[in-house]
Amino acid sequence: MLKKVLLHIDQCERWEMVLKNAQNLMNQYEQRSTPYRIEIVANGEAVAEYALTNLDLQTAMGELMTQNLRFIACNYALEAAGLTLGDIFPFVEVVPAGVVEIADRQLEGYAYIKP
Amino acid sequence: MLKKVLLHIDQCERWEMVLKNAQNLMNQYEQRSTPYRIEIVANGEAVAEYALTNLDLQTAMGELMTQNLRFIACNYALEAAGLTLGDIFPFVEVVPAGVVEIADRQLEGYAYIKP
Amino acid sequence: MLKKVLLHIDQCERWEMVLKNAQNLMNQYEQRSTPYRIEIVANGEAVAEYALTNLDLQTAMGELMTQNLRFIACNYALEAAGLTLGDIFPFVEVVPAGVVEIADRQLEGYAYIKP
Repeated sequence: MLKKVLLHIDQCERWEMVLKNAQNLMNQYEQRSTPYRIEIVANGEAVAEYALTNLDLQTAMGELMTQNLRFIACNYALEAAGLTLGDIFPFVEVVPAGVVEIADRQLEGYAYIKP
Repeated sequence: MLKKVLLHIDQCERWEMVLKNAQNLMNQYEQRSTPYRIEIVANGEAVAEYALTNLDLQTAMGELMTQNLRFIACNYALEAAGLTLGDIFPFVEVVPAGVVEIADRQLEGYAYIKP
Repeated sequence: MLKKVLLHIDQCERWEMVLKNAQNLMNQYEQRSTPYRIEIVANGEAVAEYALTNLDLQTAMGELMTQNLRFIACNYALEAAGLTLGDIFPFVEVVPAGVVEIADRQLEGYAYIKP
């Protein structure tokens, strides 16, 4: 059965934990040959780590990013941070509101985890 | 379709984020003419911000409060904070235990978000 | 109806709140004669508080632990903390990955709460 998990982050200092959580999910699902979809939804100040100028996490994020793991940014949060599409990693998808995305995904059967 | 979302807060410093999240949900659902119910459930120390003496957030909370957005307080947390019904904003509803409310609402189809 | 609730903890300083949340759930469900299952899932640094050397919380945890409340530890987190089965409270159950446990339980109808 397809496993669907959403990881929510709204504080910069939690990125390391979120990425480790995503890696652990992927390791386990791949070991078990379980199909999965993971979404990492960032809103609040946490979207700042999507900026192209962020050299710390870009490699770690890029290595995780696959067809089965998506990075999402809240557009309200990008605007509040003064970031536009051209300022963030090209693999990040933008949604109008992170909280609407989180609510919709739970309705679609995604488990919610807030590291 | 009716969208139902519960925002959970148990730390005072997260109130600003919770209220912004609620505002963004409302903006989006109203733009899309989507009916919705939002519950903000406060337990732990976060209930202190419901006190009548709190001048910082009262206006912001009052402006959000509508038929579709309810503010809830955990009674265990109010007791721990030494607050009674007479000490808190009249628009706040009190439940016996915030955690029971959160669990029950998820069973009723509410999405859970912890800012 | 059986109520199922999962409490998630990944930061040491949140243990007191998590245990209080669990106690409040149990008090309410017992008052209402509602059958329940509670799982406390610790990952990240929070597993350190399961160590036998932790004298602060051992009594509080032991008193909560019943047939209906289980303490879970993430094995990835135990490894990262340098802890083995022999180093932690005997009432703690170990799962391969805390995040997989959290996702699976939500699929089984557990409400998720992150104190």
